[in-house]
Amino acid sequence: MLGSTHGTLTTDSRRTRAIACGEQSGPVVHGRPAQAGDLDVSGRPLHADAPDLDRFFRPRSVAVIGASDATGRPNTGITRQLADWAERVGATLHPVHPSRPSVFGIPCSPSVADLPEQVDLAVVLVGDPLPVIEELADAKARFAVVFASGFAETGPEGEAAQRRLTAAVERSGLRLLGPNTNLNAFERFREDLEGPAIALITQSGHQGRPVYALQELGIRLSHWAPTGNEADLESADFLSYFAEQPEVGAIACYLEGLKDGRSFLLAADRAARRGVPVVAVKVGRTETGARTAASHTGKLTGADAVVDAALRQYGVIRVDGLDELQDTAALLARARPPRADGVVVYSISGGTGAHVADLATEAGLSLPVLSEAKQAELHQWIPEYLSVANPVDNGGHPVGDHRGRKIIDAILDDPAVGVLICPVTGPFPPLSDRLVRDLVDAAEQTDKLVCVVWGSPVGTEPAYREVLLGSSRVATFRTVGNCLTAVRAHLAHHRFTAAYRSPFDEAPRTPSPSYRKAQALMQPGRQLSEHAAKQLLRAYGIRVPREQLVTSAAAAVRAAGLVGYPVVMKASGARIAHKTELGLVKIGLTSASQVRDAYRELTDIARYEDVSLDGVLVCQMVEQGVEMVVGVTHDDLFGPTVTVGLGGVLVEVLRDTAVGVPPFGEEQARDMLAGLRGRALLDGVRGRPAADLDALVEVVLRVQRMALELGDQLAELDINPLLVLPRGQGAVALDALAVCR
Amino acid sequence: MLGSTHGTLTTDSRRTRAIACGEQSGPVVHGRPAQAGDLDVSGRPLHADAPDLDRFFRPRSVAVIGASDATGRPNTGITRQLADWAERVGATLHPVHPSRPSVFGIPCSPSVADLPEQVDLAVVLVGDPLPVIEELADAKARFAVVFASGFAETGPEGEAAQRRLTAAVERSGLRLLGPNTNLNAFERFREDLEGPAIALITQSGHQGRPVYALQELGIRLSHWAPTGNEADLESADFLSYFAEQPEVGAIACYLEGLKDGRSFLLAADRAARRGVPVVAVKVGRTETGARTAASHTGKLTGADAVVDAALRQYGVIRVDGLDELQDTAALLARARPPRADGVVVYSISGGTGAHVADLATEAGLSLPVLSEAKQAELHQWIPEYLSVANPVDNGGHPVGDHRGRKIIDAILDDPAVGVLICPVTGPFPPLSDRLVRDLVDAAEQTDKLVCVVWGSPVGTEPAYREVLLGSSRVATFRTVGNCLTAVRAHLAHHRFTAAYRSPFDEAPRTPSPSYRKAQALMQPGRQLSEHAAKQLLRAYGIRVPREQLVTSAAAAVRAAGLVGYPVVMKASGARIAHKTELGLVKIGLTSASQVRDAYRELTDIARYEDVSLDGVLVCQMVEQGVEMVVGVTHDDLFGPTVTVGLGGVLVEVLRDTAVGVPPFGEEQARDMLAGLRGRALLDGVRGRPAADLDALVEVVLRVQRMALELGDQLAELDINPLLVLPRGQGAVALDALAVCR
Repeated sequence: MLGSTHGTLTTDSRRTRAIACGEQSGPVVHGRPAQAGDLDVSGRPLHADAPDLDRFFRPRSVAVIGASDATGRPNTGITRQLADWAERVGATLHPVHPSRPSVFGIPCSPSVADLPEQVDLAVVLVGDPLPVIEELADAKARFAVVFASGFAETGPEGEAAQRRLTAAVERSGLRLLGPNTNLNAFERFREDLEGPAIALITQSGHQGRPVYALQELGIRLSHWAPTGNEADLESADFLSYFAEQPEVGAIACYLEGLKDGRSFLLAADRAARRGVPVVAVKVGRTETGARTAASHTGKLTGADAVVDAALRQYGVIRVDGLDELQDTAALLARARPPRADGVVVYSISGGTGAHVADLATEAGLSLPVLSEAKQAELHQWIPEYLSVANPVDNGGHPVGDHRGRKIIDAILDDPAVGVLICPVTGPFPPLSDRLVRDLVDAAEQTDKLVCVVWGSPVGTEPAYREVLLGSSRVATFRTVGNCLTAVRAHLAHHRFTAAYRSPFDEAPRTPSPSYRKAQALMQPGRQLSEHAAKQLLRAYGIRVPREQLVTSAAAAVRAAGLVGYPVVMKASGARIAHKTELGLVKIGLTSASQVRDAYRELTDIARYEDVSLDGVLVCQMVEQGVEMVVGVTHDDLFGPTVTVGLGGVLVEVLRDTAVGVPPFGEEQARDMLAGLRGRALLDGVRGRPAADLDALVEVVLRVQRMALELGDQLAELDINPLLVLPRGQGAVALDALAVCR
Repeated sequence: MLGSTHGTLTTDSRRTRAIACGEQSGPVVHGRPAQAGDLDVSGRPLHADAPDLDRFFRPRSVAVIGASDATGRPNTGITRQLADWAERVGATLHPVHPSRPSVFGIPCSPSVADLPEQVDLAVVLVGDPLPVIEELADAKARFAVVFASGFAETGPEGEAAQRRLTAAVERSGLRLLGPNTNLNAFERFREDLEGPAIALITQSGHQGRPVYALQELGIRLSHWAPTGNEADLESADFLSYFAEQPEVGAIACYLEGLKDGRSFLLAADRAARRGVPVVAVKVGRTETGARTAASHTGKLTGADAVVDAALRQYGVIRVDGLDELQDTAALLARARPPRADGVVVYSISGGTGAHVADLATEAGLSLPVLSEAKQAELHQWIPEYLSVANPVDNGGHPVGDHRGRKIIDAILDDPAVGVLICPVTGPFPPLSDRLVRDLVDAAEQTDKLVCVVWGSPVGTEPAYREVLLGSSRVATFRTVGNCLTAVRAHLAHHRFTAAYRSPFDEAPRTPSPSYRKAQALMQPGRQLSEHAAKQLLRAYGIRVPREQLVTSAAAAVRAAGLVGYPVVMKASGARIAHKTELGLVKIGLTSASQVRDAYRELTDIARYEDVSLDGVLVCQMVEQGVEMVVGVTHDDLFGPTVTVGLGGVLVEVLRDTAVGVPPFGEEQARDMLAGLRGRALLDGVRGRPAADLDALVEVVLRVQRMALELGDQLAELDINPLLVLPRGQGAVALDALAVCR
């Protein structure tokens, strides 16, 4: 993987097993040579190479290897379910069994080689799938599903077996789902449900059950991909495919690990471009979760902060509980684009309104105060002493007659209102039954979002079961928390997609002129001196102080004259950490004599501390800015990532940093900064001037460029501090550490 | 309220309308003179003066004023419900109506004065309750409930009416619930349910409905206090009472505002002493919520950070959603004290286990790795390739036979395990029905906590409705999130009560010797100079640098000699803010000539900036510590509070502070510090020494003492910075601002 003309990234997915452009052999992208335009400057693909899964989900012919109709055999039930499924999707079923003439009355083939036609899909139920996979490859089957477990999830031996399976598939055009998967791909979906559907991707079939069960609440499902160990087909392939299916309104994912970071980003990018919301549970918030998930499916969960950043960059909505996955995916699948961001809370109790308004505001939703005119309109039906400013409290009674519907319509008619949330805290049939019916009717007449929170813990009430769940236009929740999570996600999703520009479109394809300069500075296997590291930054157009490396007191004085007083002097060497703590930095030197003294002192300390120097840096002194840190680290899943944070105590104690996963553009870089807790420092606090945010963003982007171009050659980069000067004055890297591989 | 011999606090509740000890007239606590021991040094009560509500909840006689049995009158339904309730509690009902001879066949009294006996409880259904309340007071009724609305919740006019109601009650021994309340106190509770019950307090009846509905899920309720506007009886009174009822396992509260901070703390203290868990939704996280809640019941919500701190100090478990209130209160009411803090996640799917273990760890629960021996035991029944370290993944099959129960028992038998959480992600009756039955059976045989999360969004499955909800020993949840919230609260509650020492027992009752010294320094209506403010600190034993106030350069040099070089010099005056920014501070002066120059420069700048000085401070220079801020502010609900935070950028930008609500003890002061995000700075980061935490705690406690003793006299105190030196070396207040009222 190494040794290309410029840095490449180590990746292990076959679709990203790309080799740097410029190599003679040329990259191979899923069996065909990649075009130059297919790869970015880091040698990674710029387009999702997702397979067409039409024939997987709607095959014309299905073989079942290991089919059975013998009583008591587990495969019998599976065969029956597959036969039912095949009939539903209009596929011909071909059972394969070495000895039986027929299964469930359908003639059997004795082996794969004897199948009467080339099959679109083969379901492999036998315990040792490897020979069958090879036969299927020879028989030109398009897709295979392997149920057997005992592969990467069980340890090193299983991993080896899985690699053999992967290798067998890679030699052919066959694509494989599994191993360690199940029947979920062949579930029966309710066909009587209407509207946009949820497509489901799960790395543990069991974890998809609650989303599947949403059909019982009237939410349509269209697909379920239980990806198992992902020896070949991975979650990203299904994500890409689902994003292009017209019936899919949202994609719900339960992910334990990602097989390949880049594939996932490209798939998420595809969904973002098409405006299809992706809602995901991603295990791995903690070490415990990461370790357990890894032992479950044999996949890496990735450093959570990096995964989290990657998901955010591509607008993937991350949730924690399966209940949030259900509720958020259901809302996003079915709600129309918001007409406005304003949320109105409407209830029959002032207490409920106050409580929900409090939680909604805390959740970051915007609750506009309704106009005087609108309030006057509402007071036609609601007593004067009740507040209708938002939340709207109707006091109960108006709900019981014709006024109820008029109030709802009047609220929905307000152009500032995009969402109406009506918490029904406790069912009181004389009021709540009519309220719910009015809400359902009103929702049919508007394209605004109407949400109801059914607060009863019981949930068997007819108004809930029959009226609310019977409506495809009202979004019904059981908790205020989940309602607010989903509404926030809905509004954020549409804001995100409206502004989305794919970073892949703008990702650099060829090395910049900086790259040649930088390469000359790299010293494989070594940590660069501060001076050399700063030259590297300079190669990428990042400003560093004027400075000179000197090896005598007299030279130091000359350098100070050139650099300009006051100066800073620092011991310089390849491996000096904690310079300040050791007394190896002198600041604010204003005269030749101070420079001479400082030179002597620094070299004395270095001798005393046994630190080897290549000289002393005499640097321009730059003050009056906000100290930041900007760095590059490598992530197992996503390759090089760029970190930015507030310097000093904020990074040391609070680790107040944000991660960018390349490729990212200017907007994403700004989002990173916006997410810092200490962000106010950049805006200027206590009379200090605002910092040059544009210059900071530019440094982050240049560091990204460097990270992509140098790739594995640059093991680590840490600019600390980067001093961001007042607006219009730029940013200067005062110190830097770079480690070459 | 002012003008006592030492500072008192302005309070407006009648039970806390206490006057400083030492005054001749003496404090009056609810109609009787308070004993000296009843009040702390701030003049506030040290004991909850909660009324005995036995005759409220179990009256021998009940009068209904405005009773009716006329068809179509709202009071008819209410009268019927009251008659039913009176019968259930064994009370004689006395309808009162000016003209009817009887209501529902029960003889009527024409007026309150004509009642045949002194009644325990009178329910007032008439629109203008004031005259009736006066009659009831004359008739020596014990309790009255007023349903009428139109009081403090409607604005100034209603507030005045409510004050008249309160005054009428205060003149008598009558206690009043309401106005603006409802029938919730007279609900029928299911009598077939067993075990400890939830007692419910709500300031909005509607918001209590979901908790009331828990009875349909098998959770017992014993009381419901819908406190309405709290013109007299307040939430705290019911909290105190419920905490002493043997059948109450937990108290669930829905609070919009608190009538009186001290009463609430005393009630929460009573619950904490008795180990009765209190779970509360408290509206007012945001401005929107606070404003809306205030307009709903006419109560203050209080500064949320202060309320939050107060709740935490007394172990009140704050939750946000009513669903969390239900689930947490239900668990805490019924679960026995934990035998261990260890949580095991047990599931039939490795994916589910990984996911829940991740979320549980993120929630702060401890998931111990099971011992080798325990794992070997579990592997008797669970295949070797599945992980049983914790989470325990049984792979599904063992659940279907005798092994299922053995696994559960083996887990519960582990001494490291206090809680078993079994998420049933999707019902699959062949496995999950037996699993659930085994869990219910096992829970009967253990005093450890068994939790099941029923993950299906449907909730009509028999295994859920009949088996799980039929068990009073298994805690059943619908979401993993709520299960983890409740389990965390359960474990935290028992840790809290085990360590609880009431701060009221140790609260100072008489002024300290410091108080006399401090009083001499107070300058009513003025901001003290830095020097005077430091004298105030010194009076309370808080260390300040050696310093002298001088008015000539020569005196400055003499002072520096006495203080000891190096020195800091600062302009001193009554109203100087931002000294550093103005250049009015000179640090690190090491010689007489530097001191002379500095004196000249400071007085020049002051002249130029038109700052009036009372001199220049020559101070000992103290370095090498962690900068903190400690201050006193006044809260509308809780009086003076003490704030502590990390200094510098952490307080300026991140507002990383903690609040202590007096009275608090040393442990609570330590908890405040533990909650700071930048806490690591005190522990020493990057090789810096750990700070003198004990000294910091001592300063916080001394500032509390000062705040309590000076009370309203001290409008504001701000020590910034307090330099906390390395361990064993103390803490020094480098600068202080004090404002007298």
